[in-house]
Amino acid sequence: MPVNLSPPLANALLPIKGVSLGIAEAHIKKPNRKDLLLIKLNPQATVAGVFTQNKFCAAPVMVALEHLATNATIRAFIINTGNANAGTGERGMIAARATCAEVAALLDCEATQVLPFSTGVIMEPLPLAKLVAGLPGCVADLREDNWLNAATAIMTTDIVAKAVSRQITLGGKIITITGIAKGSGMIHPNMATMLGYIATDANVAQPALQAMVTNACNASFNCITVDGDTSTNDALMLIATGMSDAEIIGDMHSAEFQQLQAAITEVSVVLAQAIVRDGEGATKFMTIDVVAGKNEAECKQIAYAIARSPLIKTAFFASDPNLGRILAAIGYAGIDDLDVQRLKVYLDDVLVAENGGRAPSYQETDGQRVMQQSDITVRVELNRGAAAATVWTCDFSYDYVKINASYRS
Amino acid sequence: MPVNLSPPLANALLPIKGVSLGIAEAHIKKPNRKDLLLIKLNPQATVAGVFTQNKFCAAPVMVALEHLATNATIRAFIINTGNANAGTGERGMIAARATCAEVAALLDCEATQVLPFSTGVIMEPLPLAKLVAGLPGCVADLREDNWLNAATAIMTTDIVAKAVSRQITLGGKIITITGIAKGSGMIHPNMATMLGYIATDANVAQPALQAMVTNACNASFNCITVDGDTSTNDALMLIATGMSDAEIIGDMHSAEFQQLQAAITEVSVVLAQAIVRDGEGATKFMTIDVVAGKNEAECKQIAYAIARSPLIKTAFFASDPNLGRILAAIGYAGIDDLDVQRLKVYLDDVLVAENGGRAPSYQETDGQRVMQQSDITVRVELNRGAAAATVWTCDFSYDYVKINASYRS
Repeated sequence: MPVNLSPPLANALLPIKGVSLGIAEAHIKKPNRKDLLLIKLNPQATVAGVFTQNKFCAAPVMVALEHLATNATIRAFIINTGNANAGTGERGMIAARATCAEVAALLDCEATQVLPFSTGVIMEPLPLAKLVAGLPGCVADLREDNWLNAATAIMTTDIVAKAVSRQITLGGKIITITGIAKGSGMIHPNMATMLGYIATDANVAQPALQAMVTNACNASFNCITVDGDTSTNDALMLIATGMSDAEIIGDMHSAEFQQLQAAITEVSVVLAQAIVRDGEGATKFMTIDVVAGKNEAECKQIAYAIARSPLIKTAFFASDPNLGRILAAIGYAGIDDLDVQRLKVYLDDVLVAENGGRAPSYQETDGQRVMQQSDITVRVELNRGAAAATVWTCDFSYDYVKINASYRS
Repeated sequence: MPVNLSPPLANALLPIKGVSLGIAEAHIKKPNRKDLLLIKLNPQATVAGVFTQNKFCAAPVMVALEHLATNATIRAFIINTGNANAGTGERGMIAARATCAEVAALLDCEATQVLPFSTGVIMEPLPLAKLVAGLPGCVADLREDNWLNAATAIMTTDIVAKAVSRQITLGGKIITITGIAKGSGMIHPNMATMLGYIATDANVAQPALQAMVTNACNASFNCITVDGDTSTNDALMLIATGMSDAEIIGDMHSAEFQQLQAAITEVSVVLAQAIVRDGEGATKFMTIDVVAGKNEAECKQIAYAIARSPLIKTAFFASDPNLGRILAAIGYAGIDDLDVQRLKVYLDDVLVAENGGRAPSYQETDGQRVMQQSDITVRVELNRGAAAATVWTCDFSYDYVKINASYRS
């Protein structure tokens, strides 16, 4: 069950003027499941994205990058679940391009103005005919107050739909931001896997929008891990429709940019944490804070060593304060000149280790108390600098194995 | 249950002249369990070792390195299970030194001539009084035909004892090699964790012996992973008693060195594979071969990405040929200039992927047939060079979670 994660309420999700969403059942993997989402954008909208670094990146990712490279005005996203269209070779590329062309014909635009996204099983052919047959249903369903259905349509092994809205005031004008995401396994990010779409009615020039989505991603989706696997299909897209009354944002050093950046990052963090809270089989949500390091890279390296360790994740699942495993992970994280005598390890407010070993003040009952919680913070103080990093992860349960041993059945 | 791994037969293990072994019950973690092993060496024996690179390396590892640095003639190893004496700070160092001093007093040698080893839970104080009280029992039990009991005494979560003997002829003289090892989880290697002891009656100068154990370790224990965790206590020790009639080996380019190296490596590979076959909760043994790469490092990087992926390991547990997960792991292994169009992926003899996607010849029934086996080879041909690497691993099952969620209970 998801860890302290409630489904979003439909009336808590605010429409973004200029963005309409349509859903259909295309029967891509299973019947009677909404598995196709069309997002239509107003002609003035700017779009920016961050994509998977996986070398086996999926056909839709390659086609999306091609289309973005033409500098065409993007008018629509088409997103299917049930099949990742990854590891599908030339046939997969052709299928992704055909999907865009079919959407373009329905919306009366060019194929290069459409970006495709897929999520689901890897290395199986995309059922193109089913997908195309579902498109008119999406078009007929297009409306601005359809965000919750959209969040539901992109789910795969997710249990809870992930969506959030925020409003800020920018130069006296109200700006609205709404985002949705999906992802549960193959998160580091992974199972062909993490997709996020955030839209705002702010008016943002494309270079500034690209900087904004990169910054937001680095502070959110790039700080989570469920199983250490990075997917072939990950994408985070940011849309600015410019339909509010606020001034255009172009200068990345302006106060307006910083304000909007903060709000976009906050929405991203909420969605990224929701993915971890809904991590496959998760029963615990863990925040790994590594502080007082020489640089952010070493802090993140240690945080990920802890967050990825199956031994630590199973101990958290069992609520067993077998905390020596945390010391072992710190020790093998690959920091060559690390002095273990200087570091301290805390479990929430409980000092666990110092001077290279168990803290004299540490009582097993204190560790046990914290381990019973569903939200737990592991804090490592390196005491060798001023840098810090945070990673969010979940535990490793019987259900993780069950879900992934039977994913295709 | 261990994968195609039978317990060694007592009469298949050959004594090594000069090495006697004694076992006792010291009740370190649990009563009525042989948990203490003393290995006594003849005065002419040379000793070499390879130790964990973990920065939180255990007190016994630090003390062993100190004692080896004095160039003292090593006369004994003392090994306990049930407690790793890791993450135990200054108190742990003192306990490890005291253990050596007590052994030295019983054997009439110096404390620096004794090397300590511990395996078990991390960050709990070593029960020194119990350990010391058990030492006379070990001394009373010392004998040369005690290898199987020794292999059993060092087990923790291991189900099967790991031991093997080989004989070779070197310059017309028979040389015997016997080795034992323990390890099952926190293998990458890990749970405070991998210990190996190999002895031969060959006569090998110390620098040559050090090269030999390093080479053997690189080709065996450094090619395995169960869970990606590297322990605080790993050690592989090689002993040459010089009690055979064979000539001394000092030249690392001699035919005799190469012959003995091959045999030592073979023993190491048998023991390393046994650790994987007895991996916590293992039901499948997987060989990951990555060939035709630019260099060994990139081949190993890809092999480990596959071997460590929880998604791949759970798919093997389920005998589900969800082989797109292998493509995803190859893609995120971190090889920047990898051309996925050129590589091929095989499951045993079945061609699964080529030209960036599923091979046209691939049939799910063929993949399914191989996945049903208990021993499976994944072969990745990179087709960009002549280097290769092999990694051995096991699958990820419900029992892995069960064992590690309840390790301390």
